Amino acid sequence: MSVTVRSEQACFGGTIGVYSHASRETGTEMRFSVFVPPGAAARPRPALYFLAGLTCTEETFMIKAGALRHAADHGLVLVAPDTSPRGLGLPGEEDSWDFGTGAGFYLDAEAEPWRPHYRMYSYVTRELPALIEAGFPVQAGRRGVFGHSMGGHGALVIGLRNPETYRSVSAFAPICNPVAVPWGEKAFGHYLGPDRSRWTAWDASLLMRQRPFPDSILVDQGMKDQFLDGQLRPESLESAAAAVGQKLVLRRHEGYDHSYWFIQSFIADHLAWHAERLGT
Amino acid sequence: MSVTVRSEQACFGGTIGVYSHASRETGTEMRFSVFVPPGAAARPRPALYFLAGLTCTEETFMIKAGALRHAADHGLVLVAPDTSPRGLGLPGEEDSWDFGTGAGFYLDAEAEPWRPHYRMYSYVTRELPALIEAGFPVQAGRRGVFGHSMGGHGALVIGLRNPETYRSVSAFAPICNPVAVPWGEKAFGHYLGPDRSRWTAWDASLLMRQRPFPDSILVDQGMKDQFLDGQLRPESLESAAAAVGQKLVLRRHEGYDHSYWFIQSFIADHLAWHAERLGT
Repeated sequence: MSVTVRSEQACFGGTIGVYSHASRETGTEMRFSVFVPPGAAARPRPALYFLAGLTCTEETFMIKAGALRHAADHGLVLVAPDTSPRGLGLPGEEDSWDFGTGAGFYLDAEAEPWRPHYRMYSYVTRELPALIEAGFPVQAGRRGVFGHSMGGHGALVIGLRNPETYRSVSAFAPICNPVAVPWGEKAFGHYLGPDRSRWTAWDASLLMRQRPFPDSILVDQGMKDQFLDGQLRPESLESAAAAVGQKLVLRRHEGYDHSYWFIQSFIADHLAWHAERLGT
Repeated sequence: MSVTVRSEQACFGGTIGVYSHASRETGTEMRFSVFVPPGAAARPRPALYFLAGLTCTEETFMIKAGALRHAADHGLVLVAPDTSPRGLGLPGEEDSWDFGTGAGFYLDAEAEPWRPHYRMYSYVTRELPALIEAGFPVQAGRRGVFGHSMGGHGALVIGLRNPETYRSVSAFAPICNPVAVPWGEKAFGHYLGPDRSRWTAWDASLLMRQRPFPDSILVDQGMKDQFLDGQLRPESLESAAAAVGQKLVLRRHEGYDHSYWFIQSFIADHLAWHAERLGT
């Protein structure tokens, strides 16, 4: 597995880099960014994966979230993958901002023509961690995951499906119940096909009812979020948690919207949350 | 003076907004961004102006520098203007990234066709502060200024020319001696004309020798900065400071480049520097 360094720059005493490689899962060149905190060369650190939202790339979170300062303080390696394969030229891939390129939804597609390439779940949970653990100073198997919006959905689903691998899970304004909202219906309908019984394996509120996550989950939600009514459904996650005794810290913040200004404002709490659970 | 709200979003308990207005100084619509920290409505705060570098806009610093957290903590209002007038259609204005649009150099042009519009010095030191003090919860006359690269030049020049108004000055990788480097020669040659005696009023290293700033100045410089050799000349500022007894904290950082990753890494120190001097 060969990784190309696109850029590496000093930041907070560590290194922020953008890398690319030929992905086996997607059949495309994939990019990801990594922040390595100071001191990691001498003592490998836990890896915390951030999954970004619709239209974002591997750069968005690193630049806009203000997370690196806290990752440096806590000694966490931050990893941010891209949000989908790119440049495949599949029909419809570029037609809308909430489907196709930039909108991989962190699942493994089952319907054509997406099936062979839109495999962001396997990419994020297997191929990318293998690359990271081989090439960066991280502790193998010591992972946390968090994300925003579509990436919050991804983080919740990945944590709930792999509690043995991911020790900490949090999300900003996640799509909590995608089978029941327009974004999810559009994406799942195309990627997974019309049989809705195939969708449930990728819905955090449904997964949680089957098997809660063994630790508490942190979710922040802005109350002026322009997508709160209709797309996010934190109340579905809350109901699922209540039904099965899942510990859930769901914080509703008056006045905050869906942007990275919202994420910035609460990012310190998320880094502390993961650091505590990953044992930095 | 009428200001249009382009956006206003909650961030760190305060508000980040982008605003526009018809500028008297430039004869164009100008945009600026403002972060108002929590509590400012009840008790107005000092205003700290950030001047960005070549190609940047009023948004760059607010999104990329990670400054808002610290401004909220210290109770500082942050103001970031655009880097030049835009859309004038002057010949040559769009031909290069280091001159014209996005490259106003924070001076008042004296040569045609720039003279009537490229008046960023008067804009930043007079027109914009008047707008800010009229429309935002800031303490009148309690100002600090800092900036990056071309904006570091701007901050140093503005502080040195107006020590009674600006109580605190700092810079990241400033163009310290523009009359002697390609960026400055190109910009000053066009904006000010070929008579180099007209240039000295806009060069920090020369201004400092005439009249030092009454307080210490903080400058951070990365030693892997791709523009350090040839464009920035921190040694000129250092020599000027030594010659006239100017207090100067010039920190050279191994491994850091010219980017906002560098700025992020040391932004907390700059906010603390200004907060201490502005008496928040």
